[in-house]
Amino acid sequence: MAKKLTSRSEDYSKWYNELVVMADLAENAAVRGCMVIKPYGYAIWEKMQAELDKMFKATGHQNAYFPLFVPKSLFEAEEKNAEGFAKECAVVTHYRLTDDPDKPGKLRVDPEAKLEEELVVRPTSEAIIWNTYKNWIQSYRDLPILLNQWANVVRWEMRTRLFLRTAEFLWQEGHTAHETKNEAMEETQQMNQVYADFVENFLAIPVIQGLKSASERFAGAEETFCIEALMQDGKALQAGTSHFLGQNFAKAFDVKFATKEGKLDYVWATSWGVSTRLMGALIMTHSDDNGLVLPPKLAPIQVAIVPIYKTEEQRIAIALVAEKLKEQLKSKSISVTFDNRDNFKPGYKFNEYEIKGVPLRIAIGPRDLENKQVELARRDTLEKTTLPLDRVVDHIPPLLEEIQNQLYQRAQTFRKTHTTIVDDFSSFKEVLNEKGGFISAHWDGTAETEEAIKKATKATLRCIPMEGEIDPGICVYSGKPSQRRVLFAKAY
Amino acid sequence: MAKKLTSRSEDYSKWYNELVVMADLAENAAVRGCMVIKPYGYAIWEKMQAELDKMFKATGHQNAYFPLFVPKSLFEAEEKNAEGFAKECAVVTHYRLTDDPDKPGKLRVDPEAKLEEELVVRPTSEAIIWNTYKNWIQSYRDLPILLNQWANVVRWEMRTRLFLRTAEFLWQEGHTAHETKNEAMEETQQMNQVYADFVENFLAIPVIQGLKSASERFAGAEETFCIEALMQDGKALQAGTSHFLGQNFAKAFDVKFATKEGKLDYVWATSWGVSTRLMGALIMTHSDDNGLVLPPKLAPIQVAIVPIYKTEEQRIAIALVAEKLKEQLKSKSISVTFDNRDNFKPGYKFNEYEIKGVPLRIAIGPRDLENKQVELARRDTLEKTTLPLDRVVDHIPPLLEEIQNQLYQRAQTFRKTHTTIVDDFSSFKEVLNEKGGFISAHWDGTAETEEAIKKATKATLRCIPMEGEIDPGICVYSGKPSQRRVLFAKAY
Repeated sequence: MAKKLTSRSEDYSKWYNELVVMADLAENAAVRGCMVIKPYGYAIWEKMQAELDKMFKATGHQNAYFPLFVPKSLFEAEEKNAEGFAKECAVVTHYRLTDDPDKPGKLRVDPEAKLEEELVVRPTSEAIIWNTYKNWIQSYRDLPILLNQWANVVRWEMRTRLFLRTAEFLWQEGHTAHETKNEAMEETQQMNQVYADFVENFLAIPVIQGLKSASERFAGAEETFCIEALMQDGKALQAGTSHFLGQNFAKAFDVKFATKEGKLDYVWATSWGVSTRLMGALIMTHSDDNGLVLPPKLAPIQVAIVPIYKTEEQRIAIALVAEKLKEQLKSKSISVTFDNRDNFKPGYKFNEYEIKGVPLRIAIGPRDLENKQVELARRDTLEKTTLPLDRVVDHIPPLLEEIQNQLYQRAQTFRKTHTTIVDDFSSFKEVLNEKGGFISAHWDGTAETEEAIKKATKATLRCIPMEGEIDPGICVYSGKPSQRRVLFAKAY
Repeated sequence: MAKKLTSRSEDYSKWYNELVVMADLAENAAVRGCMVIKPYGYAIWEKMQAELDKMFKATGHQNAYFPLFVPKSLFEAEEKNAEGFAKECAVVTHYRLTDDPDKPGKLRVDPEAKLEEELVVRPTSEAIIWNTYKNWIQSYRDLPILLNQWANVVRWEMRTRLFLRTAEFLWQEGHTAHETKNEAMEETQQMNQVYADFVENFLAIPVIQGLKSASERFAGAEETFCIEALMQDGKALQAGTSHFLGQNFAKAFDVKFATKEGKLDYVWATSWGVSTRLMGALIMTHSDDNGLVLPPKLAPIQVAIVPIYKTEEQRIAIALVAEKLKEQLKSKSISVTFDNRDNFKPGYKFNEYEIKGVPLRIAIGPRDLENKQVELARRDTLEKTTLPLDRVVDHIPPLLEEIQNQLYQRAQTFRKTHTTIVDDFSSFKEVLNEKGGFISAHWDGTAETEEAIKKATKATLRCIPMEGEIDPGICVYSGKPSQRRVLFAKAY
C-alpha cells in the first residue's frame, strides 16, 4: 500500500508538499527551484489553458510569441520594473561550452564566447514587448493592440515550493496598448473580471477582486488589480493580477502615436497574468486528508470505473457492462476511464483515484451485475450510493454539476467564516494567530502603517476590495482616519 | 499602396525574408537571432499545434513539462549529445543584477551572485528528462513512458533566418522509454509516420521518409528517421526527425529496469520533434510572387468577404447580405472574416488578403447585389468566378478541399520533376547547379564519400529513403559498390 498522506491538522505545509507528489502532479527537478510538471498535473493545466484561451479570444485578444531573452539595456529601461526584478534574474553571459582542459570528458564555459551584452531570462516581458510595440505603433489606427502570450518565465526565488513559487513557471501574460487612459483602465478591469470568472467557475474558488496598495503593486504599474483567494489553512493566495501601467513603458521605450486630433501622445498600457500558481490554489482550496479533490470541470478524469472480480468469467461479464457504460458516458462528453488493469487490486485502484481526486468512482462487482446496479462514490463527500445500472448515465452529468457547485459553496462558506471584522490591533493579532483568514480592518492609507503591521504580524495588505461601500473609521494600527476597510492576511 | 514583394526568380532568399514580414508572420527581435512571432503567424502555428497534439494523444502520448535549464553536469553526461550541442549553448552563469557603481541608473551582473554550477538553456531535453526518468523507472511495469512537451529551446546559431533557423524556437519534443529495442524502434517509426501524415495532410507538403546517414544523425542517436520536403528553389528542408536513441541515454543516466524475467536491463529510448521551422516549409512550398498561399486546413482565415460600395445605402445593403453569408459559412465550421473597415479601400483589402494567403476572397458590390451574385477569387490560382449568392454556402466547403488537394498535387508534381536520377558525378554537379532538387544517386555508404560530395558540391545526403527497392549499382563519386540509391540535395 502507498504511504499515508500527512493530515492537514498535523502539518499543513507538509500535507501540501506530499500531496503534490503523491497525486502525481509535479516534483522537484534536478535544477534548483524548478519543477517537473507530470502528465496528470499538466493535464489539469492544459484544461485551465484551454478555458482561459477561449475567454481571452472572446474578449478580442490574439496570441503571439516574444523572445525568452531580454538584453540588459532593454531590461533596465523602465527603472521601477528593472529594480523590482533585478534581484532575481537568471543571466545568460556566454553562448558556448568547450572541452575543459583540466577535466577530460567534461565541459566548461568557453571564456572566448562571452556575450557583449548580457541577456536576462525574462521574469516578465514588458520590456521586450514595449521595445517591439515601438515599431508597430505610429498612429491611433494601430491601436489598440490586444495580445497575449503563453510562456515560461524565470524568477530566481530563494525559497521555492511546487506550483506556488518556483524559479521557472508557466504562465500567460497579456500586454495591451491603448489610445486613452480610460480604455486602458477598462481593459485592466475587464481582464481582472475575466480572471475572477474563470477562477470561480472552473477552479470553484471564490475570489475577492480588489486593488493592491502601492507597496504591493507590480513593479512599473500605476495600479494593480488582483483576485485574492483563501486557502484552508487561513492564508491568502494571490491568484491573478491585472496591471494598469499608465504611460510608464511607453515613456521608457519612447512609444508615441499620432492621435485622431493629430497630436503626439504616449501610448497607454496594461499587462495581466495568471500562472501555474493556480494549480497550488486549486489543490489547497478543495483537497482533504485523503488526497486531491478536483472540481469536475478541470478533472482530467471525471469518472473512473473499477471492476471487482475473482473469476475470469466475472471479469469478462463486468468488462462488457463497463465498456458500454464508458461509451455512453463519453457520448455525453464525460471523460471516463475503465480501469481494467489486471495486475492491480481494486483497493489499490480506489486509493489511486482517491488521492488523484477523481470526482466519481463507479465500482462493479459480481453481485452488482446480478442486481443490475453499481456502487457510486463521490470524492468530495466520500459518500457511497447504490444506483440502478440503467440510471447511471442520466444521473452523472447533473451530479458532476452539483459537485462543482458544492465545492464552490463549501469554499465560500469557509471564506465567510474566516473573514473577521476587527477594530483594534490586539484583536487583529489574536484573530490572525488563532483563526487566520482575512481580517477586514481600517487602514490609514499609508505605506508606513502597512509596513508596521507586516513587521508586527507577518500579515500583508491583500487588497482594497472593489465591493463594499465607503465606510469611514479609524485605522486599526495608527488610530488615524480611514476611508474604508481593507483586507489583511498572511499569504502565500 | 504597400511596397512590392521581390519576385522569387529575382532573389528567392530576399523574397522569403520580405514575405515573412509583409504577411505579418514574424519579425526579427531586438535579441540577436531571435524572432517575434506575430499574431497571424502564431495563429497558423496554433493550428499546427492543435492537430499534432491530437495525433500525439491518439497514439497514446501525454504532455508534461520539464525545466528550461540543464545543469552542466547533466548536460555533459551523454557525451555525443553534449559534443553536438556544446558549441551553440546559451549559458546562465549568474542569478542577479545589481546597480552598476560606475553608471548611475544602469545595472550590471552581480559578481556576488555567480552560480556554483552553470545552467545550460535547453537546446533539447534528453539530458534533463532522462535524469528524471531515472527516478520514475524501476520495473517493466513502469514502461512504456510516452511523453511529449511543447516548449521553447535555444541553439546559438550564427546565421539565422526567421522560422528556418533562429536562436530560440518553439517546438514539441517527444521522449519515450521502452522495455525492448523493437518497441522503441516501432515508436520511432510510428512518430516519423505521424509527422509525414501531418505534413502531407495539413501543410499539403509531400515528404520523403528516410533514414539519415551516420554523419547527419542527431547527436546521441543510433538512428535518425526524417521527413524531407522540397522547396520551390530546389533546396531540401528537413521538416521533422524521429530518433532511435538505443540505450545511450539510459546508460549515461544509469536508468535500469527489472525485466519480466527478473533481470536488470537498460531502458530503450526515442525522441522526436518538429518545430516552428515547419512555418518556413509551409511558406516556401506554396507561396508565390503575390505573397503567401496557405492550405485551407491551416489558414486562420479561410474566407474574407470584402464589400465594395460608394454610398451609405449601399454599405448597409451589402453588410446585411455579407453578415448573413458569414453566419452561414461559420455554421459550416469555416473561418470567415467580413472586412467592414471603413477607413480602407477594397483594393487595399484585396492586397492584404492576397499577401496573407487567405484561400478565398468574396467581393460584393452594388451590381452583385442587384444580380444576387458574388465574385469569388481563389488565392492559389488567382482565378475569379461569379457565383449566384444562393450557391455560395454549398460551393465553398468542397472548394476549400479542392484547394487543399491541388496545393498538395502541385507540390508533388514539382518534386517529381525536380527529382533526378543521376549516375555520374559530372551530371550530379550539373543537375545540382542548373536544376536543383533531389538527386537520386548511388552512394558507397561511407562518411568519407558523403563528406567529399558535400565539399565539392555543397549538397548533403538528405536521406536513405524508406521506399524503393534494393537496387545495387556503383557509387556516383567513388565508383565503389552501392546497395541502393539515396537522395542528395542542397538544403536549408
